[in-house]
Amino acid sequence: MALTLGIVGGGQLARMMIAPAVELGVDVRVLAEEPGMSAALAATATGDYRDLETVRAFAREVDVVTFDHEHVPQAVLRALVDEGVTVHPGPDALQFAQDKLAMRARLAELGAPQPEWAAVADASDLQAFLDENGGRAVVKTPRGGYDGKGVRVVSSPEEVADWFGDGPLLAEELVDFARELAQQVARRPSGELAVYPVVETVQRGGVCAEVIAPAPERTARLAEVAADIGAAIAEGLGVTGMLAVELFETTDERLLVNELAMRPHNSGHWGQDGAVTGQFEQHVRAVLDLPLGDPAPRQPWAVMVNILGGPETDTLESRLPAALAAHPAAKVHTYGKAPRPGRKVGHVNATGDDLDAVVYEARAAASFFAD
Amino acid sequence: MALTLGIVGGGQLARMMIAPAVELGVDVRVLAEEPGMSAALAATATGDYRDLETVRAFAREVDVVTFDHEHVPQAVLRALVDEGVTVHPGPDALQFAQDKLAMRARLAELGAPQPEWAAVADASDLQAFLDENGGRAVVKTPRGGYDGKGVRVVSSPEEVADWFGDGPLLAEELVDFARELAQQVARRPSGELAVYPVVETVQRGGVCAEVIAPAPERTARLAEVAADIGAAIAEGLGVTGMLAVELFETTDERLLVNELAMRPHNSGHWGQDGAVTGQFEQHVRAVLDLPLGDPAPRQPWAVMVNILGGPETDTLESRLPAALAAHPAAKVHTYGKAPRPGRKVGHVNATGDDLDAVVYEARAAASFFAD
Repeated sequence: MALTLGIVGGGQLARMMIAPAVELGVDVRVLAEEPGMSAALAATATGDYRDLETVRAFAREVDVVTFDHEHVPQAVLRALVDEGVTVHPGPDALQFAQDKLAMRARLAELGAPQPEWAAVADASDLQAFLDENGGRAVVKTPRGGYDGKGVRVVSSPEEVADWFGDGPLLAEELVDFARELAQQVARRPSGELAVYPVVETVQRGGVCAEVIAPAPERTARLAEVAADIGAAIAEGLGVTGMLAVELFETTDERLLVNELAMRPHNSGHWGQDGAVTGQFEQHVRAVLDLPLGDPAPRQPWAVMVNILGGPETDTLESRLPAALAAHPAAKVHTYGKAPRPGRKVGHVNATGDDLDAVVYEARAAASFFAD
Repeated sequence: MALTLGIVGGGQLARMMIAPAVELGVDVRVLAEEPGMSAALAATATGDYRDLETVRAFAREVDVVTFDHEHVPQAVLRALVDEGVTVHPGPDALQFAQDKLAMRARLAELGAPQPEWAAVADASDLQAFLDENGGRAVVKTPRGGYDGKGVRVVSSPEEVADWFGDGPLLAEELVDFARELAQQVARRPSGELAVYPVVETVQRGGVCAEVIAPAPERTARLAEVAADIGAAIAEGLGVTGMLAVELFETTDERLLVNELAMRPHNSGHWGQDGAVTGQFEQHVRAVLDLPLGDPAPRQPWAVMVNILGGPETDTLESRLPAALAAHPAAKVHTYGKAPRPGRKVGHVNATGDDLDAVVYEARAAASFFAD
């Protein structure tokens, strides 16, 4: 009997688990939010992931439950676990991806390097934090933010006045960073780890635009420190499946943890074509407690460029022939989503020996889908 | 609107088209022979591919029809084409993959190098062929053979007495070959070709056991001649999609065409992990008349070893953890088929710089699934 993996959420991360699951012989099933989503091919159920009965009925048909996103409520997750459902990552780990204040507090206990931070309950708390940190801060809602949403850079409490009143906010030091990096680690329930090379991520407008793997001009020490931070967090938080640790590399050569994601992550899409074992295959292996695959790059360089919808983007299909014709070695991945301005609807991977050529190829191929 | 590709046949070749189709944003649908087949995830219909009504109803829902196998009858194919259905490869090409006598006659017209051959209608025809070719011959039923079935090496007409009476047989010279090679070519309806490196195939008991890509110790001339033969046949026969040309390399350094396949082929499975564009993605692109991808290897060497069921093989799932644990860089592909002795149920790909190491890794990982 094939192992059956149930994925809650029908987005592109679930979609991209389908290919490696099929090849490994895993029966993959998706609980999608609605019909016609990215992972529709494997959708066996449609419903609200916040509803225990919906998730419970879906979980009953699978061996292991995992996720396309981190938004399944703790109450639902804990009820499943109490009933004996195998859930990876589990609620004890996921809480730290769901609540940024809890994450900061736990990382502090683990001794992970972080920006200065504080829980600020009101305007005077935030003013105090601003006063101690040069008059500017990053303020985040602890829950529900992604891709730059729920994040504001402020120099006065008035700029987040609309956010107060619903529990404390997270205030963070505005880090003077040289660049952003991401460290991915896979961890099985039995404890085995697979550590990916640290990569550079380039954000535009709060959204990941490009990833270069491995991070250029990284020293051996940088790579080792990043790997150690990733491994320590995966173990310290008991993560199962893929963990992504977003890092700031500061201008004074420190690494500070920015955000965590406990699922396949945009910073790891390069590995579909650039790693011996891409993150989607690795996540499937890890949550099923199968031995992990080799996370090593297949080529010296891999570059990922996201395809975002623009005001004029009609469909990706209409742009695909010209992109493929111009760039026969570029790997185009699409998410089956209608393009809307700023929405991630696909990405392009390129690999090779020469970084400039690889960056050019990935950007040039992706440009066929932009306005 | 996504392009919709309909695949007739639910076997492993259809299954392995699912992954690249999903990534390219192609809506893939399968007409499977029965429930629970290899490509069940994408099966939207179940029925007999020999029945025009069944295939016609399936074809109505898709943009392009292609195939998991070459067994759809000409009458069905021609009826679809007459009704305006886009079918790749089309019946004019497929007839040469369906009828080995027609293939030999057409290749002779094209001037492709072949073994000596003749259509033998009866025992006296075959005896004459034996007398002219050293007393031994390979006799094949023109239709329906695969994986060594419908093929006998004989030294007397009595050995195929049971095959006469149903139309002429194909008699071929028993070629004194040094090794077997395979040349793959993809061709779009609009004419573009993509030519893969020639590979070495190792057969055991008439079934492909291993493939080494590219073929070791190939001279530039050998590679060029093989590529030219593949391209000439793809163009001469009007093949659309993937073409595999099985070749004998003779002890006197000639290449002779053994068999043709107009679909993804076992000799190209290495490309899933070893080529920039594997054959399954290439077939999807080609039959949809999308620009072809780069067929170049990603690594100096790729080796594919088939997993065949043995008398004691229980399930692949039970063997998977040990195989993955011992060989974290090997890529295991399974077909979702119940193991039976001699049945192809999966394969392992390995890639790298050192051929001996790559051969070892692929064989060692595959050995976990053997008895």
